Amino acid sequence: MNPREPAVVRPVLAQRALAAKSSIIREILKITQRPEIISFAGGLPSPDSFPVQELRAACDEVLRADGKAALQYSTTEGHAPLREWIAAREAALGMPTSPEQVLIVGGSQQGLDLVGKAVIDPGSTVLVESPTYLGALQAFAQFEPEFVALPADAHGLAVDAIEASTLNDARFVYVMPTFQNPTGLTLSVERRAALAELAREHDVWLVEDDPYGELWYRSAPPPSLRAYAPERTIRLGSLSKVLAPGLRLGFLIAPADVIDVLVRIKQATDLHTSTLTQRAATHVLASGLLQTHLPEVRALYADRCAVMLNALRTSFPAGVRWTEPDGGMFVWVELPPSLDAGKLLPLAIERKVAFVPGEPFYAATPQRNRLRLSFVTVAPDRIRKGVEILGALLREYES
Amino acid sequence: MNPREPAVVRPVLAQRALAAKSSIIREILKITQRPEIISFAGGLPSPDSFPVQELRAACDEVLRADGKAALQYSTTEGHAPLREWIAAREAALGMPTSPEQVLIVGGSQQGLDLVGKAVIDPGSTVLVESPTYLGALQAFAQFEPEFVALPADAHGLAVDAIEASTLNDARFVYVMPTFQNPTGLTLSVERRAALAELAREHDVWLVEDDPYGELWYRSAPPPSLRAYAPERTIRLGSLSKVLAPGLRLGFLIAPADVIDVLVRIKQATDLHTSTLTQRAATHVLASGLLQTHLPEVRALYADRCAVMLNALRTSFPAGVRWTEPDGGMFVWVELPPSLDAGKLLPLAIERKVAFVPGEPFYAATPQRNRLRLSFVTVAPDRIRKGVEILGALLREYES
Repeated sequence: MNPREPAVVRPVLAQRALAAKSSIIREILKITQRPEIISFAGGLPSPDSFPVQELRAACDEVLRADGKAALQYSTTEGHAPLREWIAAREAALGMPTSPEQVLIVGGSQQGLDLVGKAVIDPGSTVLVESPTYLGALQAFAQFEPEFVALPADAHGLAVDAIEASTLNDARFVYVMPTFQNPTGLTLSVERRAALAELAREHDVWLVEDDPYGELWYRSAPPPSLRAYAPERTIRLGSLSKVLAPGLRLGFLIAPADVIDVLVRIKQATDLHTSTLTQRAATHVLASGLLQTHLPEVRALYADRCAVMLNALRTSFPAGVRWTEPDGGMFVWVELPPSLDAGKLLPLAIERKVAFVPGEPFYAATPQRNRLRLSFVTVAPDRIRKGVEILGALLREYES
Repeated sequence: MNPREPAVVRPVLAQRALAAKSSIIREILKITQRPEIISFAGGLPSPDSFPVQELRAACDEVLRADGKAALQYSTTEGHAPLREWIAAREAALGMPTSPEQVLIVGGSQQGLDLVGKAVIDPGSTVLVESPTYLGALQAFAQFEPEFVALPADAHGLAVDAIEASTLNDARFVYVMPTFQNPTGLTLSVERRAALAELAREHDVWLVEDDPYGELWYRSAPPPSLRAYAPERTIRLGSLSKVLAPGLRLGFLIAPADVIDVLVRIKQATDLHTSTLTQRAATHVLASGLLQTHLPEVRALYADRCAVMLNALRTSFPAGVRWTEPDGGMFVWVELPPSLDAGKLLPLAIERKVAFVPGEPFYAATPQRNRLRLSFVTVAPDRIRKGVEILGALLREYES
């Protein structure tokens, strides 16, 4: 028998792998990476915002000062000074936190994976917003929960409309309360407090995903959801938007005994997050970079958002509505009910403009007349031109 | 109600999280990090082998030349030039490989996690060596398989002694065929061929874990297990031992359609591996560093191993046996049947020497008179002193 025989064989896949679909966004991005396309489809932060020189100096310094340690295995919990910095930052944002309540992860997508692994059994209930972050749906789906979509209105999660019976036996409520992906909406103080109260009454955990909270335009958002129910909230944060995503650094904040469980799971999952990137990030953060850097990022994103909102007002037909975010990276558009964003996408790409249709952001019945626009990586003149093209397309198909 | 109430509540944990135990090695390492302890317990590569200056220059160059790309999100599959380099390296080692057959992961522990996620359903059978790498047992256990331990002898996995019925319906056989952790043993050419043949006959997949294959002392090991059954092998490799573990870089090699499945799962798990560390590693690898670097690492490890084997011959009592590895980082010791390595450990630590007892390396019934010694991070005089202390302890407890 020829040991190099080219026979095609396939392993028996696990149920969860059979269900794993590639992200529609990933497929769209492959098409839209062509430079002639004006892409509002991305979820990438603007590379203009990356502190390249500061990170370059930081890598150099950590490898110069203690290179062997920066390249060795390290603890699963994460680099102690980084845990301390994150705890102090949370405290500065109004929520007292100890380093033992912080776990460093390889980006907040890994945080979602670890939370799913820790808490979801096949068939158990996970409550989500509608729409919600599709990466969370993908991460949690690996552990085969039953998703239940919570009610929403024009202000986001409609806490008052949640039926009590929905909460029974739910493992957790997954919420992105600040500058949500995909809607850009922010949950009010009142709704945060009411959600925390509801969670406490029904003994349900909250998973607060907050990658964009630092990216506010005019004023800081309300306190984190964790501030309202620290004893039952797992909070996910990210350095991808305040520093750079290529570092793959994020963090989980939770009661220390929950962190202990997540640490054991992370150990089995990937031992620990890169020592080098953790140390480099710590170096720039400890230097106070964010004090000058964040205002620049906020101004950049606020400007681009304003350009997009103006362009939408100028170019989109009556009968189309959109959110007006106070921060973050996304505008959520509601087309007239007769239009299907998924069907418009190939027509828009023909005209060299791309967006993400709303469908993949829904755990249950999708609202097909929604679409997501990201503005942060597109130059102002191209934002205006792209929105103009989309507006013309909508006018044609409305009639 | 006080929103900051310190009530202790706990989330309902998934079955897999209830089963997750912290690694005994991790617990031992916490004790043995005190500098006065001579620790043979670690599994860490020697930091003396890290190419610190080369990686420092590489980070500087990738951030200078294309810093924005090095800090942005990137593809789940991995940095294309790194996939190409790894494919070319495999080809140079005798196994033709295309970049589409390579997935970059965050260390080979993550590779184990992704394989487990892709292939293991609760209750499905996974075949393992006895003893086997405990990190693999931890990674796979997250997906709740039934482990079945395969027979072993003084040369490692006893392929001829595997009962055919054992292979029925097994999802895969997990093997570390080269300089195994914990035994240091290498599977012969004949056994590799026989295992591949058996896998083909019974339509079972092979998962080949090969973090140490490049660390040979005198001559290269046999071709990889994948060379004997490329159509049904998932091969895991690591840059942790040839470059540095703090980068958290490893790779999976498999048929392209299996890589497609693993890519979808990795996307849901952590999006992708750090762009920065991938690019820095590519830079040093493409420069040909390994041509000069690997001979140095091999010589360092060969010397330390020789010191340990000499010390064992000098200081250990008759009736104790050990493996004599041709590469890698570990010696596996067999004590007289009456001795329990787990009970000896606290006594050894009292005398300031540490090792890892054999028990956690067994999926089924442990052989309690085994222990693992790692020599690569210990200076020669401390190797001799530590082995002398252990030898004296064994003499006392034998009698």
